[in-house]
Amino acid sequence: METHEKGFFTEENSVEVVTGRNINARDERLKDVIAVITRKLHEAVKEIEPTQEEWFKAIMFLTQTGHLCNEWRQEFILLSDVLGVSMLVDAINNRKPTGASESTVLGPFHVADAPELPMGSNICLDQKGEDMVIHGRVLDTKGRPIANTVLDVWQANDEGFYDVQQKGIQPDFNLRGVFRTGEDGRYWFRAVKPKFYPIPDDGTVGKLLMALGRHPYRPAHLHFIIKAGGFETLTTHIFDPHDPYINSDAVFGVKESLLAEFKRVDDPQRSRELEFPGWFWEVDYDFVLARPREH
Amino acid sequence: METHEKGFFTEENSVEVVTGRNINARDERLKDVIAVITRKLHEAVKEIEPTQEEWFKAIMFLTQTGHLCNEWRQEFILLSDVLGVSMLVDAINNRKPTGASESTVLGPFHVADAPELPMGSNICLDQKGEDMVIHGRVLDTKGRPIANTVLDVWQANDEGFYDVQQKGIQPDFNLRGVFRTGEDGRYWFRAVKPKFYPIPDDGTVGKLLMALGRHPYRPAHLHFIIKAGGFETLTTHIFDPHDPYINSDAVFGVKESLLAEFKRVDDPQRSRELEFPGWFWEVDYDFVLARPREH
Ligand SMILES: [Fe+2]
Ligand SMILES: [Fe+2]
Repeated sequence: METHEKGFFTEENSVEVVTGRNINARDERLKDVIAVITRKLHEAVKEIEPTQEEWFKAIMFLTQTGHLCNEWRQEFILLSDVLGVSMLVDAINNRKPTGASESTVLGPFHVADAPELPMGSNICLDQKGEDMVIHGRVLDTKGRPIANTVLDVWQANDEGFYDVQQKGIQPDFNLRGVFRTGEDGRYWFRAVKPKFYPIPDDGTVGKLLMALGRHPYRPAHLHFIIKAGGFETLTTHIFDPHDPYINSDAVFGVKESLLAEFKRVDDPQRSRELEFPGWFWEVDYDFVLARPREH
Repeated sequence: METHEKGFFTEENSVEVVTGRNINARDERLKDVIAVITRKLHEAVKEIEPTQEEWFKAIMFLTQTGHLCNEWRQEFILLSDVLGVSMLVDAINNRKPTGASESTVLGPFHVADAPELPMGSNICLDQKGEDMVIHGRVLDTKGRPIANTVLDVWQANDEGFYDVQQKGIQPDFNLRGVFRTGEDGRYWFRAVKPKFYPIPDDGTVGKLLMALGRHPYRPAHLHFIIKAGGFETLTTHIFDPHDPYINSDAVFGVKESLLAEFKRVDDPQRSRELEFPGWFWEVDYDFVLARPREH
């Protein structure tokens, strides 16, 4: 009987031997997934040729990453984020037809029960930051307005913190709101200009970023989840294109089509109408939703 | 400026965008390693096309694996073992010239301070199991004996447990010993026939094995670390080729060249000489050490 028939491991046949063990897997999908993971993992090891010490460093990196995870912190998701894996999974699961708005990562700061507010509300509850008005339309790929669309929006304040990160400092549900469009598909609300912020960088992922010469910042953005009957739900951001980190988002969330214009407006008449004390930022951005199986 | 120049993420350019961020890495080796890991990880994701739910399952698997790791348990090493990664790293770091004995994984049960014993000692301290004598030579690749070789040996008992797993049940240093060869390069000692045993299978790795239709067993073996001045240290096992799990070692440690013959001997005269009460097992196995840069 030859080595290969017995299935003994060699450097050359490593993938076949390991994958060959899983012929009795209960679940075909799991079997396929593990086959790909095994093959890519072995390819990586053969290309890297790690020393035993490097292998052990990798084991300890994963171990410490696991030890950092708890109810309110997910260091493995951060790792997935900074390696571009989260964005890749998002991209694969949200391929859109031409003209439809692109998705980006959900992030960890969405809360399910933000209040539904009348159109035009100011979601900034503590008057801190630079005033901003944001408006636009929700359209289908033919350019027709979508009535009864629900926009769930949330953002960091002008110091780069979400309300849930500063309980007791920011009011509950600060800079969050849910809006519903009318027949015209239009939305508008008031807020403050968001600020860039760092992902948690005091753990293994932060150390990795540091060693790779990378910063932990995400450029300023507003989050949206946009739902309308008969359309695919869109989870996305819009970004400030003048943010210092716009070309180097630590989690790779930026897409060209998600850059909005943040226009500074000095117009006392409009400030009065919007109940702003002085100049403000204005953003005009249309979202385009795709129908399922439109692509 | 084009999307690609700005380095915005797309499904197509995902690898280049992520790797491109690491141009200022402090350490060239780390940069290269992360480049390979990123590329293979993205290739795997593109081939698997995980749903968001599957991605999250993977995150939780890694998280739970991390949570199982503590001072005395290393679930990530087990994961590396059952995916053949540990054996692959071992193979890459221990390529041997033709004729030299092959290496295999160290395993978690080596202890540093086992006693040096006179040749011929019985390392079984509790008289439990089937008697065994093992002997052979340590040679160079030209077939010449290597004097002053130190053989560090350890094994599970006939119930499949190492002494360190059964403190208070087995005597300390049961089935362990260090032996030093003379001018003839010969070694011999007495022991008991080892038994197959499971790797820890009550954690995430055990669940994965179960789902993959795999068992957690390692076929019966003796561990050796063999050191001699001027030669590469050899970390290896010898295996019982008639073990029920010989073709399906859970950690892929078996190599054709590491199969020894476990011969049952019924010879009252030899039993008396060896101070065994009755029949016994006999193993004859030569080790061949390579010189550094011999290959
Ligand atoms: Fe965010
Ligand atoms: Fe072992």
